[in-house]
Amino acid sequence: MGYGEIDQKAINTIRVLAVDATFHSNSGHPGAPMGMAPVAHVLFNKFMKFNPKNPKWLNRDRFVLSNGHGCMLQYALLHLFGYDLTLDDLKAFRTVDSRTPGHPEAHDTPGIEVTTGPLGQGVCNAVGLAIAQAHTAAVFNKPGFDIVDNYTYCFLGDGCLMEGVSSEASSLAGHLQLGNLICIYDDNHISIDGNTNCAFTENVAMRYEAYGWHVVVVDNGDTDLDSIEAAIKKCQQVKDKPSLIKLKTTIGYGSLLQGTHSVHGSPLKADDIKQLKKKWGFDPEKSFDVSKEVYDFYGKHSSEGAAAEDKWNQLVSKYSQQFSNEYADLQRRLKGELPQGWQKSLPIYTPADSAVATRKLSETVLEKIEGAVPELFGGSADLTGSNLTRWKSAVDFQPKSTGLGDYAGRYVRYGVREHAMGAIMNGLAAYGTILPYSGTFLNFVSYASGAVRLSALSRVRVIWVATHDSIGLGEDGPTHQPIETMAHFRSLPNCMVWRPADGNETSAAYYVALTSQHTPSIIALSRQNLPQLEGSTIENGMKGGYVLHEVQGAQITLVSTGSEVCICVDAAKYLNEKHNIKARIVSMPCFEVFDTQSKEYRLSVLPDGIPSLSVEVMSTMGWERYTHEQFGINRFGASGAYKDVYKKFEFTPEGISKRAVATVDFWKGVSNIRSPINRAFQQLI
Amino acid sequence: MGYGEIDQKAINTIRVLAVDATFHSNSGHPGAPMGMAPVAHVLFNKFMKFNPKNPKWLNRDRFVLSNGHGCMLQYALLHLFGYDLTLDDLKAFRTVDSRTPGHPEAHDTPGIEVTTGPLGQGVCNAVGLAIAQAHTAAVFNKPGFDIVDNYTYCFLGDGCLMEGVSSEASSLAGHLQLGNLICIYDDNHISIDGNTNCAFTENVAMRYEAYGWHVVVVDNGDTDLDSIEAAIKKCQQVKDKPSLIKLKTTIGYGSLLQGTHSVHGSPLKADDIKQLKKKWGFDPEKSFDVSKEVYDFYGKHSSEGAAAEDKWNQLVSKYSQQFSNEYADLQRRLKGELPQGWQKSLPIYTPADSAVATRKLSETVLEKIEGAVPELFGGSADLTGSNLTRWKSAVDFQPKSTGLGDYAGRYVRYGVREHAMGAIMNGLAAYGTILPYSGTFLNFVSYASGAVRLSALSRVRVIWVATHDSIGLGEDGPTHQPIETMAHFRSLPNCMVWRPADGNETSAAYYVALTSQHTPSIIALSRQNLPQLEGSTIENGMKGGYVLHEVQGAQITLVSTGSEVCICVDAAKYLNEKHNIKARIVSMPCFEVFDTQSKEYRLSVLPDGIPSLSVEVMSTMGWERYTHEQFGINRFGASGAYKDVYKKFEFTPEGISKRAVATVDFWKGVSNIRSPINRAFQQLI
Repeated sequence: MGYGEIDQKAINTIRVLAVDATFHSNSGHPGAPMGMAPVAHVLFNKFMKFNPKNPKWLNRDRFVLSNGHGCMLQYALLHLFGYDLTLDDLKAFRTVDSRTPGHPEAHDTPGIEVTTGPLGQGVCNAVGLAIAQAHTAAVFNKPGFDIVDNYTYCFLGDGCLMEGVSSEASSLAGHLQLGNLICIYDDNHISIDGNTNCAFTENVAMRYEAYGWHVVVVDNGDTDLDSIEAAIKKCQQVKDKPSLIKLKTTIGYGSLLQGTHSVHGSPLKADDIKQLKKKWGFDPEKSFDVSKEVYDFYGKHSSEGAAAEDKWNQLVSKYSQQFSNEYADLQRRLKGELPQGWQKSLPIYTPADSAVATRKLSETVLEKIEGAVPELFGGSADLTGSNLTRWKSAVDFQPKSTGLGDYAGRYVRYGVREHAMGAIMNGLAAYGTILPYSGTFLNFVSYASGAVRLSALSRVRVIWVATHDSIGLGEDGPTHQPIETMAHFRSLPNCMVWRPADGNETSAAYYVALTSQHTPSIIALSRQNLPQLEGSTIENGMKGGYVLHEVQGAQITLVSTGSEVCICVDAAKYLNEKHNIKARIVSMPCFEVFDTQSKEYRLSVLPDGIPSLSVEVMSTMGWERYTHEQFGINRFGASGAYKDVYKKFEFTPEGISKRAVATVDFWKGVSNIRSPINRAFQQLI
Repeated sequence: MGYGEIDQKAINTIRVLAVDATFHSNSGHPGAPMGMAPVAHVLFNKFMKFNPKNPKWLNRDRFVLSNGHGCMLQYALLHLFGYDLTLDDLKAFRTVDSRTPGHPEAHDTPGIEVTTGPLGQGVCNAVGLAIAQAHTAAVFNKPGFDIVDNYTYCFLGDGCLMEGVSSEASSLAGHLQLGNLICIYDDNHISIDGNTNCAFTENVAMRYEAYGWHVVVVDNGDTDLDSIEAAIKKCQQVKDKPSLIKLKTTIGYGSLLQGTHSVHGSPLKADDIKQLKKKWGFDPEKSFDVSKEVYDFYGKHSSEGAAAEDKWNQLVSKYSQQFSNEYADLQRRLKGELPQGWQKSLPIYTPADSAVATRKLSETVLEKIEGAVPELFGGSADLTGSNLTRWKSAVDFQPKSTGLGDYAGRYVRYGVREHAMGAIMNGLAAYGTILPYSGTFLNFVSYASGAVRLSALSRVRVIWVATHDSIGLGEDGPTHQPIETMAHFRSLPNCMVWRPADGNETSAAYYVALTSQHTPSIIALSRQNLPQLEGSTIENGMKGGYVLHEVQGAQITLVSTGSEVCICVDAAKYLNEKHNIKARIVSMPCFEVFDTQSKEYRLSVLPDGIPSLSVEVMSTMGWERYTHEQFGINRFGASGAYKDVYKKFEFTPEGISKRAVATVDFWKGVSNIRSPINRAFQQLI
């Protein structure tokens, strides 16, 4: 309340910066920043708690711009409030290697919490941030020590609401009663195809009420700052429901073309910019022109934020004395480091141990390490009993009122919502105190492609427990049997795709996944039992690829992953007995980790001089990078008992041997066979 | 109304068949079939119009089992009503190469309209089938000739409702006022993780009302057949809204474990089966035991269906006389054949023509062929102006009341709903009279991975117009620039991925996509302008890969796609001038089509004797199959003007030449360089 001229000046400064930056770079979206500047002003200056000098302060309020194309709004705010983002950075908007790319990227720009732009993702990240806050508070807060009590705010547009992924996360957020989450929907009636009445006529408020959200409508988001403030206040008071403010705004407010889709994705024309600057008392001849008055005004709020952090630090200092273990744990988590010696909990196997499905071995890992790694925070997209993602004593993350758990619980029932699960994990990881993992069938990680891509791009540590990893799932059939999935995620940059062959390799996969702070992992796990292999160790597995079985005078290298490694072991015997061919065996659970080994090591695993054959029950695509010949399945699978399906596709010792013989024959004539590891030049990184 | 003993007997027969089949194969989901048998009975026997002797009758009612894991329900119904599905087929449930796989597959089993199982997909397919019906009716029906007036019915479960893709499609279906769509939600409160109260507590009825649906609740779906019938009748009467019947059922009805998740995904125990058979008057010692009475009862309905088709055929016969053109058009469409000579409309270019973005060339194709191919039915996920998917005179497919179009319109405003768009296209294609295509950015086809996979698996002809296909989109940056996308879909079986380099190749891509009746296509198109290449022709492009530029005494083959082909042309000149290296150039717009050419042809394109280098601004994965060395981008892109981004990643004549020189040097020492086309053995197909 009590808004005056300076508020209007500040709001218009945000707008003008967005207009100038998009005009200057001749690219970008001025409309949303212009429309949302008033609510951004009220939110950031009246409500949000943050310290631009320390963008990583744990108890800051989180802000997510789900409509990431409007990022000039966020860049302008960050600059004006004093984050380390200069006017020159704003001038470099959308140019190569700037800190102001076309959509906000968390790892590059201070104050950006999560990478957004692909529609629908941000609001799910916000749900993740809110879950993380609720959980962290439940675990670490003590009477008199509310050291974590921040809100998560999220702006989103029509596009985000149309995307199914936001529906999934919103339904779950309602169920979880996340009162710390306040979303503001920019109801501007414009999308790229024009007026939303051509495709989006649902009753959004009613939909969100159906999800169990608290919904407020603000009719004039352009000028009625008091109503905006009152709405946010009201939402803060509702503690047992997430809130949605449906805020009617005018896209491109101030432009001659305001309210049309012409201002959505293209810079304003020079004349239009001039009239708008004149109208608002800016010098029409100047660009990127910010008055000291506005800097001072926002600077005051930032100083208050810095003071709030100081006060919080004092509280935490007292906390550290009374709750030294919790304090130490929290500090450790924030650094992304695991507890000393945690890895001693990883199970180790010998060939004498019994054959077990790797999904079950994964369960054992979780069971063994969950005590040592309290930030592990799991879940499944309604396949808990199949993914085996829940340790026995786990408590569900649930609102207490459900009687099914509490917020200190570390296991989320995500429901059949793979895509939201992936995007929520990105938010969980971004919060800073949690290490998320979750399960579904490998084939359905594809449903979450959009989120997995952003895990990789934004460099967060999330882990997919991807069971039922092949035709080996058997009866469910081709609709559920991955063929292209490994190739898909192997070709995604900064994403580790594991397919362990036994218990030691499963432990290795978890070890590398947990200790890779800036890379997501997908661990593909079998439904069927697999023997513990002679030659496998955790150390070997950690290399991504290694010689499982060496043999003098080998004529071929069989290279395999997961459930096919043990069949290769039998095939090697068969080749020796029936064809007098000596085969060495390489297990290669993770391409990406193998690629990081020295060339010398890689050549020792996949040497020159003899041909190699890869064996994997899915697309051969990508294997040509490592082996001379490939045995795989470049068609869809089949429904039946898994042994029958393996037989149909000839993944048997005989079937492998047949191809190994063909490989040896085919390469006989070639002198100096060169390993595919040898390359003419290095790829750019 | 007037249900009696025979109805109960029939319902229990469905249940017992599902119980027997899952027990027999020791795999599968008995719970949903047992719970939904009553509504299936009422729907199939009282409402649905079909002729088991001709499962492809155009005007049949469509049925979609979105909760596809309950497929024994559908298999039992198909058998009992007299489709070509025997008791032996039911006994072969979930065995290799049976017609009763673990989830329903449209191409294998008569009476299955669409392939379901991956949750959420079926209900979207149903939306597509309903759109197709509405459109086909609007185009072909005439006064007195309602030759197309079928309904689409869909069963779905909690899982389908939790998946975001169903939210997207449901919101659109409400907007489109599809009164011909009736969905029945099996509200059984059980999912794999247990009671839905652990993750799914939203108000479904309210959510669907918010989407603009007509919602009816039936409280007793187990025994109250009258209420079920009344509900369906009521839904049929609502002509301007899709309907959802929220039907409370007991999962595994009749089992000792009914109402628990134990009956969801595992066969019943032998004792349980015995008690259930006894209770319902079946011989507990017999399996797959169907009384003649039940066959006769259902057979009567099937006979009525056959009679209805006869009557319809008479109507159509009259129609064919009065509306011979429309009749001929309809018949042609149903065969999946295109109009004679349509391909003459495809634009042809010469190098004298100006440089144009392939997305714009795609627009020209659509503009030129839309008149010749009236079944073309387009759309975009809210990127019409960017994808250029709408020809100028197109009419939107919209309810008339919106004032924005009508059902005869051929362009759908899908909204920002890529995944639903893909799944709806699968339904559109399955109807039989429509050839769907739709646009989004290539990067966001990944959002629809689940649907694209089912296009490929179920062998339907749908076309993705995937623009902004690389870092060449420029300023939008890494969040929007595909790196892994081509590799992902290239590794998906039965999916053609095109990346044309100019106008002729764009025409070729459309030619092959339109004439491939059983394969989906993704056409990746540039944002930036590309020159018309010397050496490109439609005929060449249709081969998937061809020699664009041959040269005597070549020392290297440069192999490229799309926007990089023209840079390779410049690189070849540069190599000749600066390095005295002769390079031949291969354009390879489509791996999958190239793979179908003879080995002789493929070796003529990628010959032995000289090394080859692929050039593509994205993941190199998969290129090792065709070339010795690969130049690509195995990291994320950058935000900036596209020329700057290309320069950053060295995709310039100089950058390519540098790698070409390295390739020539690296392979100098190798005698008899073998083309990667040579393989030790053939892959199984």
